[in-house]
Amino acid sequence: MSGSKCRIVIVGGVACGPKAAARSRRRDPNAEIILIERGKLLSYAGCGLPYFVGGAVPELDGLRQTTYGQIRDEDYFRDVKNIDVRLCTEAVEIDRCEKKVHLRQIEGGAMSSVSYDRLVLATGSRPVIPPIAGIDLEGVFNVHAPADAEQIRRRIDADEVNHAVIIGAGLIGLEMCESLFNHAVDATVLEMKEHALPAFLDFEMAAYFQKELVRDGIELATGQRVLRLEGDGRVSKVITQDKEIETDMVILAAGVRPNVDLARAAGLAIGETGAIAVNEYLQTNDPDIYAGGDCVECVDQVSGVKVYAPLGSTANRHGRVIGDNLTGGRETFAGIVGTTVFKTLNLNIGKTGITEKRARELGYDVVTSITPCLDHAHFYPGGKEFLLKLTADRGDGRLLGAQLIGPGDVTKRVDILATALRFRATLRDVAGLDLGYSPPFSQAMDGVIHAANSTRNRLDGMLSALTPPEARERLARGNGMILLDVREAKEVEKNPMRDQRAVNIPLSELRRRMHELPQDAEILCICQVGIRGYEAGVILQGNGFGNVKYLDGGMRVWPFVMAGVESPE
Amino acid sequence: MSGSKCRIVIVGGVACGPKAAARSRRRDPNAEIILIERGKLLSYAGCGLPYFVGGAVPELDGLRQTTYGQIRDEDYFRDVKNIDVRLCTEAVEIDRCEKKVHLRQIEGGAMSSVSYDRLVLATGSRPVIPPIAGIDLEGVFNVHAPADAEQIRRRIDADEVNHAVIIGAGLIGLEMCESLFNHAVDATVLEMKEHALPAFLDFEMAAYFQKELVRDGIELATGQRVLRLEGDGRVSKVITQDKEIETDMVILAAGVRPNVDLARAAGLAIGETGAIAVNEYLQTNDPDIYAGGDCVECVDQVSGVKVYAPLGSTANRHGRVIGDNLTGGRETFAGIVGTTVFKTLNLNIGKTGITEKRARELGYDVVTSITPCLDHAHFYPGGKEFLLKLTADRGDGRLLGAQLIGPGDVTKRVDILATALRFRATLRDVAGLDLGYSPPFSQAMDGVIHAANSTRNRLDGMLSALTPPEARERLARGNGMILLDVREAKEVEKNPMRDQRAVNIPLSELRRRMHELPQDAEILCICQVGIRGYEAGVILQGNGFGNVKYLDGGMRVWPFVMAGVESPE
Repeated sequence: MSGSKCRIVIVGGVACGPKAAARSRRRDPNAEIILIERGKLLSYAGCGLPYFVGGAVPELDGLRQTTYGQIRDEDYFRDVKNIDVRLCTEAVEIDRCEKKVHLRQIEGGAMSSVSYDRLVLATGSRPVIPPIAGIDLEGVFNVHAPADAEQIRRRIDADEVNHAVIIGAGLIGLEMCESLFNHAVDATVLEMKEHALPAFLDFEMAAYFQKELVRDGIELATGQRVLRLEGDGRVSKVITQDKEIETDMVILAAGVRPNVDLARAAGLAIGETGAIAVNEYLQTNDPDIYAGGDCVECVDQVSGVKVYAPLGSTANRHGRVIGDNLTGGRETFAGIVGTTVFKTLNLNIGKTGITEKRARELGYDVVTSITPCLDHAHFYPGGKEFLLKLTADRGDGRLLGAQLIGPGDVTKRVDILATALRFRATLRDVAGLDLGYSPPFSQAMDGVIHAANSTRNRLDGMLSALTPPEARERLARGNGMILLDVREAKEVEKNPMRDQRAVNIPLSELRRRMHELPQDAEILCICQVGIRGYEAGVILQGNGFGNVKYLDGGMRVWPFVMAGVESPE
Repeated sequence: MSGSKCRIVIVGGVACGPKAAARSRRRDPNAEIILIERGKLLSYAGCGLPYFVGGAVPELDGLRQTTYGQIRDEDYFRDVKNIDVRLCTEAVEIDRCEKKVHLRQIEGGAMSSVSYDRLVLATGSRPVIPPIAGIDLEGVFNVHAPADAEQIRRRIDADEVNHAVIIGAGLIGLEMCESLFNHAVDATVLEMKEHALPAFLDFEMAAYFQKELVRDGIELATGQRVLRLEGDGRVSKVITQDKEIETDMVILAAGVRPNVDLARAAGLAIGETGAIAVNEYLQTNDPDIYAGGDCVECVDQVSGVKVYAPLGSTANRHGRVIGDNLTGGRETFAGIVGTTVFKTLNLNIGKTGITEKRARELGYDVVTSITPCLDHAHFYPGGKEFLLKLTADRGDGRLLGAQLIGPGDVTKRVDILATALRFRATLRDVAGLDLGYSPPFSQAMDGVIHAANSTRNRLDGMLSALTPPEARERLARGNGMILLDVREAKEVEKNPMRDQRAVNIPLSELRRRMHELPQDAEILCICQVGIRGYEAGVILQGNGFGNVKYLDGGMRVWPFVMAGVESPE
């Protein structure tokens, strides 16, 4: 150690860095703590930027205030935390032998250096800039730093934007849909992959999401490779392989990459994901150098695989663990389960664990279910819907992941399932949870319990379900399958199935009319949300029908998957 | 078995009974299933009755409809489920040797009997009727059966009720506050115990709750023993040991007791809680007789103790397990963790696990914390507050329980913590949860994570906290303690501490002004919600102050506990 006090140097002042600094100070009143930040602002909530653009957060300063209204600036960190903050200062090199960091002033370029006993790299991430012509045109923005958000907002406030193209249908891109919508700016979202939210949602859930989004007035085009941006100084057109879109603004939301140059140049280990590799103490391969936040990779507790999943919540948790370990603690960061939630317009979207697609890639034999749920008791007014897909291991019934979409209270169920995943819960465990029940807040058996039980029924082989993609494939083959519509007459009248294979026998009449159906036909039972279809299938199967299935999730899910394919609706 | 088909007889048609019947049918198409119900209605959501009274649920029939609007009546159970329902029929005796149940028609009294292979007792509960004079007067109601709710509603709709007395400040009594409030009926709630919700909340949380409730215009009197009801035919006055209250209606909400007479008379084991004893398969001591719902006791998974905790959600889960076991399954019910949520007026209230008081009674050495939380990011508009108390085992840091109150989104956090309790999570586990973060839904570190970390700090001995009751006691002793108010000047001006022991040094000035404080004094650091008080205490302690503490939960919690005692506010 250099002298009597431990000197802690932290590179990065947004989320993980300030948290590590503050925690260190609380545990060690004597440490010398120096916080280096390249930008002008400290400790801001980057996740709030779309809400500043959209207007929900009126001032950028709101994003760097404490809960009691204090701006977290250099003075605050000095006066309250006794932390030496150096803004507009870039760490350009780490000398691990001398235990020094070389610094450069952003303005003027003056060089200096600072020695450390312990170093923290919280260097964050940077937006992916697609290598396309015209990307440097004026009017092309990221939503990564406060300055980006300010510029977008200034353009909008100056009434210069009637239309914007968002490149990337991930979380930030979709949050920006809402931000633009609030200002009556029309948006076109372009996604390179085959569906929106490719890292979050399986195909059929994304299809449902996209249908709902389009209903809210958002234009979304998938499978779009942006070839170039055009414009005379300022961007005015986006060209893809099959579209030319006139526009006033382009927002790049194609994801982020970890900032690892400083670490790599210092010879620190970089993981297979491209982010800095750290152990459970968030230590790099140099025991005096810790790293956390958007620049490191994490263990996914569900699959055991290393992943890159940059999030503000994780960065904050990293900061606390690092603060402990900088000051004599021995705290571990156990990993993540891959939880993400966000909203756009009227839809809440959540995901925790891994998708079915990812589970299959990792070699799991899976069972899934899609369950339309209500967030309140159905008899209590104001309840809202959400769709819940569960993925579990067919072998031991362990929950692997969940995807949720809808206007209903999605985040509660995401957090329940995230907690269950942390403890490697099985479907049986989830079904046995003692969740709070009161009509304004949930059904007597909450959606997560109902969905877990539905999936268990499938594991137990009680009745075969076809998932929407399976049903689509089966129907496309055009075989002799009977589509048994068990909805009541008034429902059928409002929304009839337009398919020659459809037969309507309401569930309430099925026991006395089942003789109308051939016992050896393949019968797919369909209702509105899947419950009566299941019930009907059980009745038929119990009465000797040999080839009965039901449509998972019912018609509520169905049309969103069948777009462009012959549909029973 | 009597013949080729298994005959299942189920006594009780509200929640557990119909669920067990339906699940049995799904698993066994051939079983003969007979459902006996004393009342006229089947399968209704009893938890919805206060919402029918309050008007949120317009029709009683809404409480017995499926999600797709079908009334669950005899015809529905016969046609869809092939279940033989016998309404208005009471089971009066079980002949276990003959495996028969003797039945009596409620109207007319005609007797009959039905034999069973498997019997299910889902006999529910009945309201506690306090043994006081006048209890039989007209205008005295329970809120237990649909008929009760209908009568209350009829009286209100006829404009005969300007004021009502609710006896019992438990869940139902407090839900009824809202129901009456909706009809502009003034209510006085009388509670026998020293505070509201004695089974749910510790003293200081109840004090907070009561203060908030009073602010919403509800009159609540605790420690009230009702001596008698008076009136000329119809109740017009309630007399307690120190009050005489003129009223138009009395609502009894003094809790429920399990209906065990039938079971006891048949020689089935009754547990120490007074409810029917069942094993993990929900079997009574007669292996052919199962029992579930409000008439049985459950294992509390937190304490391992048998408890009586009747809830509709538990009854439904019981029904499914029993349905499995009636039809050859071997399913277990692992127990409950004691989760309850409800709302009244602007407040959401939740509890899971055990209270601090209960934990101490059971011999736990506990650590607790009270944390004011926001349900959204503080910079995102519309966030609402809630107060979270955690109780954990001081030895191993295991979470034992949580209590939550406030206008904020309480139920999400209750369900996260209920899930954590199910897996015997420690505070460290809770702090490490990967919960969904997005500004409209949570803080970057959600309240439950922040609260778990605060409690861990206490376990680690980082800085001593005084709970509000402890602080009250210390202040009442009138010693030389300094109340160090670290709020900023504008906050102090709005809401100054009126106590001679108070000294104001804003947190931002504390490092340079700490010399104004005597190093050896006992100093209690206080702020608005506890965060700055903690920070201040850490600063002083780190600078050689030897006897520093902070007030847990800050002034936000404080005044609600200090009622009647000298208070710093």
